[in-house]
Amino acid sequence: MANEILGTDVVVQIGIIVNNIEKAAKEFAEFFAVDVPEIIETEEFEKSHTEYKGEPTRARAKLAFFRNFKNIEIELIEPDSNPSTWREFLDKHGEGIHHIGVFVKNMDQKIENLKKVGIDVVQRGDYTGGRYAYMDSVEKLKFILELLENY
Amino acid sequence: MANEILGTDVVVQIGIIVNNIEKAAKEFAEFFAVDVPEIIETEEFEKSHTEYKGEPTRARAKLAFFRNFKNIEIELIEPDSNPSTWREFLDKHGEGIHHIGVFVKNMDQKIENLKKVGIDVVQRGDYTGGRYAYMDSVEKLKFILELLENY
Repeated sequence: MANEILGTDVVVQIGIIVNNIEKAAKEFAEFFAVDVPEIIETEEFEKSHTEYKGEPTRARAKLAFFRNFKNIEIELIEPDSNPSTWREFLDKHGEGIHHIGVFVKNMDQKIENLKKVGIDVVQRGDYTGGRYAYMDSVEKLKFILELLENY
Repeated sequence: MANEILGTDVVVQIGIIVNNIEKAAKEFAEFFAVDVPEIIETEEFEKSHTEYKGEPTRARAKLAFFRNFKNIEIELIEPDSNPSTWREFLDKHGEGIHHIGVFVKNMDQKIENLKKVGIDVVQRGDYTGGRYAYMDSVEKLKFILELLENY
């Protein structure tokens, strides 16, 4: 029963905004009884081409991934102070679940499908091997939907 | 790689608090191109035995379930005005993702495991065929963990 708008019926990721990723990653690792994963940083603007609300932003974030649940990965995200959906969420809500992510094919077409139902892009960017788009789906779905596409 | 504390490595549910479940269920159904699911109400205190922060509460909620994603179900929850984790979340945060749910066996033992790492029960109750416990895991995990046990 693939969702027609998204072309997928699998949730792959839950993204959680944290204040201090070193501390949070240590606590998650203790809870799940695993080693603390590597903490990586999103790439600089020249590579990530990050856009937030249609404007370029130098925002970056530190990330850590937990793959302890077999059907979904948990991504911890610590934003920097530049404008981004990550920073906005932390300032408005504090720490918590920021997004639900799905893998898509042909992201441009999926974004067009979402625009037709009133859901536009709030932030997008590139990473090595793929790209992402956070959708402004909060009003309709109560959470931010992230589209991920690996090449 | 089953989690030792929980005895499971599968996330089964994402719970979302909403202001108006009729409106939200309609919007979700439109988005996923499915029929609006039945909206049910949690049982009255005499059957649910709901406890919130260690005290009995008459809190109830309206629920709607979406099973459009094949690896995880989405639960919409509209709380009433009585004290509950649902009401507290809505008052503090507004609409959004309230919990991540896992099925467990031998819930009492799993709760003991969680207490040992500093995570106590915030709300618990019975439903026909099973029981649930929301854990006070926000400080450590940034989300509320729900334990579900069907008999």
